[in-house]
Amino acid sequence: MKRQISDKVINRLTLYHCILNDYLNKGEEYISSGQISSLLKIDDSQVRKDISLLNNSGKSRVGYIVKELKKSIETNLGFSKNKKAYIVGAGNLGMALAKYDNFANYGLNIVCLFDNDCDKIGKEINNKKILDIKELPRYVWQHYIDIAILTVPASYAQTTANFLVNAGIKYIWNFTPTILDVPDEVQVWNENLMGNFLQFTYDLN
Amino acid sequence: MKRQISDKVINRLTLYHCILNDYLNKGEEYISSGQISSLLKIDDSQVRKDISLLNNSGKSRVGYIVKELKKSIETNLGFSKNKKAYIVGAGNLGMALAKYDNFANYGLNIVCLFDNDCDKIGKEINNKKILDIKELPRYVWQHYIDIAILTVPASYAQTTANFLVNAGIKYIWNFTPTILDVPDEVQVWNENLMGNFLQFTYDLN
Repeated sequence: MKRQISDKVINRLTLYHCILNDYLNKGEEYISSGQISSLLKIDDSQVRKDISLLNNSGKSRVGYIVKELKKSIETNLGFSKNKKAYIVGAGNLGMALAKYDNFANYGLNIVCLFDNDCDKIGKEINNKKILDIKELPRYVWQHYIDIAILTVPASYAQTTANFLVNAGIKYIWNFTPTILDVPDEVQVWNENLMGNFLQFTYDLN
Repeated sequence: MKRQISDKVINRLTLYHCILNDYLNKGEEYISSGQISSLLKIDDSQVRKDISLLNNSGKSRVGYIVKELKKSIETNLGFSKNKKAYIVGAGNLGMALAKYDNFANYGLNIVCLFDNDCDKIGKEINNKKILDIKELPRYVWQHYIDIAILTVPASYAQTTANFLVNAGIKYIWNFTPTILDVPDEVQVWNENLMGNFLQFTYDLN
């Protein structure tokens, strides 16, 4: 793994990208590092340093060119490489993620959802079908989908992970508050909401 | 702000805490750093180093005492300081977070939800009432709630943030893909799902 951009920088760049989207929607042509830094309440020099990593050419005397900078971030972070994923668990969280159109802007294409609830199977959410979980191994195989987004209840997390591993999954984006026991070749990203919250509130009394 | 534990360590400690919960539920009394590190696929020495920051006394020859280590993490990360919050936006994501009982284990007490949809107002989700957003300023004032969890659609994010600021909010946990423009005294934590995803998939082709 030769990673040129650190996790912290990736995180900040996606936040800049959100701001650039807003500016573009508002019809703004230019943006300064000061405008970005004041919205995010971080240091101006940090913003300039991060952007300097991008080989971004769209800089004028009045600031960065919004459209160019946006494209630069997309190229550098690989938004253009389309990635296919499916959601396992069509509960509230699964539904919320399926509806989150913003993912597509970042090259994440959620193809479908899987569930075992007969009342949900066959329905559609945001143009994505909810399929029977029994279909998963065949479907994933046929469509070459490597990423599973796991949003089942915590009590089913490990059993479902085992099922995914048997179906040949390579990457699991785990939204359940469970640490999954999977073989070494399977990569798990724990979306640790509580960890994030505690970082945020650590200084609160 | 004098922070003794870094964000990365806080993040890992909450993951250890998840594992300890599982072990406790399975009736296990002891756990070794190796068991933790192999589940998380990180270095054993890292786990030992993190735990050494806790002044954890519950160590025996057969490993850490699960119950003691769990308590140590809770004390160090301030889980015992109960924090009250409310959710703004009773859509799928708001509902998912309201149902997420795990939050309570970490001292986060979600008191209620707010929405402007007449069909939702008055209903309950996981014993939490959905209230009319118009009630928010009075309610928050009366109940001393400092943290808002923002889960409205992106197009309403800034307007809602302005409304919260006027109501005297101090902390916003922002789940919308929008960078909010708020006064300096208001702290915003951007739950940057796409940033997380891109960190995870950065090395993917």
